[in-house]
Amino acid sequence: MSNIGILGSGSVGDTIGSKLIELGHTVTMGSRTNNNEKVQAFVSKHGEKARAGTFADAAAFGEIIFNCTKGEGSLDALHIAGENNLKDKIIVDVANPLDFSHGMPPALTVSNTDSLAEEIQRTYPDSKVVKALNTMWCGLMVNPKLLNNGDHTTFISGNDDDAKKRVKEILVSFGWTEKNIIDLGDITTSRGTEMYLALWVRIMGSLNSGNFNIKIVS
Amino acid sequence: MSNIGILGSGSVGDTIGSKLIELGHTVTMGSRTNNNEKVQAFVSKHGEKARAGTFADAAAFGEIIFNCTKGEGSLDALHIAGENNLKDKIIVDVANPLDFSHGMPPALTVSNTDSLAEEIQRTYPDSKVVKALNTMWCGLMVNPKLLNNGDHTTFISGNDDDAKKRVKEILVSFGWTEKNIIDLGDITTSRGTEMYLALWVRIMGSLNSGNFNIKIVS
Repeated sequence: MSNIGILGSGSVGDTIGSKLIELGHTVTMGSRTNNNEKVQAFVSKHGEKARAGTFADAAAFGEIIFNCTKGEGSLDALHIAGENNLKDKIIVDVANPLDFSHGMPPALTVSNTDSLAEEIQRTYPDSKVVKALNTMWCGLMVNPKLLNNGDHTTFISGNDDDAKKRVKEILVSFGWTEKNIIDLGDITTSRGTEMYLALWVRIMGSLNSGNFNIKIVS
Repeated sequence: MSNIGILGSGSVGDTIGSKLIELGHTVTMGSRTNNNEKVQAFVSKHGEKARAGTFADAAAFGEIIFNCTKGEGSLDALHIAGENNLKDKIIVDVANPLDFSHGMPPALTVSNTDSLAEEIQRTYPDSKVVKALNTMWCGLMVNPKLLNNGDHTTFISGNDDDAKKRVKEILVSFGWTEKNIIDLGDITTSRGTEMYLALWVRIMGSLNSGNFNIKIVS
């Protein structure tokens, strides 16, 4: 069991943090302030395995840190978390750099020849960024069995093989089968999973539901 | 049976053109010059149902026109084809705006807040652009049964419902089942299927094969 830091108190952070606690890990959820109502509610819900703090508290606490902030605020949140608190740690980047300034559906703030995960890896070269789980609704991230008996696909990207192996173990503990976890390669492959969001939002619009995923058929 | 124009003599044009002839349609394949070797080979292979011509010949001939040129050259090819030859016609846009100038894997020449299909629709407002089939290897486009007994997903995007209905019929004749053809909406949804290419090339790299597709699980 690990000490895990969650950056972000939205539904993604709450969903992943709750699952990690259910699995026996201890979680500090961090937000911009140390009296965030949603973080307090998370701690009240889970008791002693859950702790509240700032972004810096959560990063300092975690051996592994999940970035569950909104993509537009992720670099700022990590800056507040502090480079020393992130050093040598695995940062699981679940965020998508969605840009709502053009209206709905969102565009991306960074794409094509760069990605949010690469920006984070460049900014924190001593951290091990692993992009994961950003291609689906958060309910599925931690409970893939909700669909097709769990038989659908998730991706990981990152430069450090040991870090990817550790994240893969966490995904398996969430219910993902090894054969459905596709390692796309280094962190630049995050461009692919982040840009897929442009298709994801359109499929969601067509199905009128976010409760879907893709399965690679080969 | 229809008269169909194919713009482009590469593997995509050859694959789609050959399937259309097998289904009983008559096809004029057009290229930049009227003595293109690959077009001549296509005609030799298929006999009287196949004809050779320029981009303009193919566009003038077709009630429906498939854009199978490379994305970087599509607007130029359509310009050569001529607005009058495209007017009131369905343009099935199969191309992807791949940009190899940054090396491998390719980026996109247009993305995020625009797409190649939208550029074509804006340039030819009297044509009916339907984006289709651009999310897979061309062998699968016309033979979906190659994988998973044909049970995987393809998408269409376009502003004209009758044009999308006609393209859907062609896809069904290729072997796609109606439930696996997802109508994403208007032509702006092409951003999604074109940007998916950024993920497609990474999955191809990981699987070391282009013979795969995605199936939406919901």
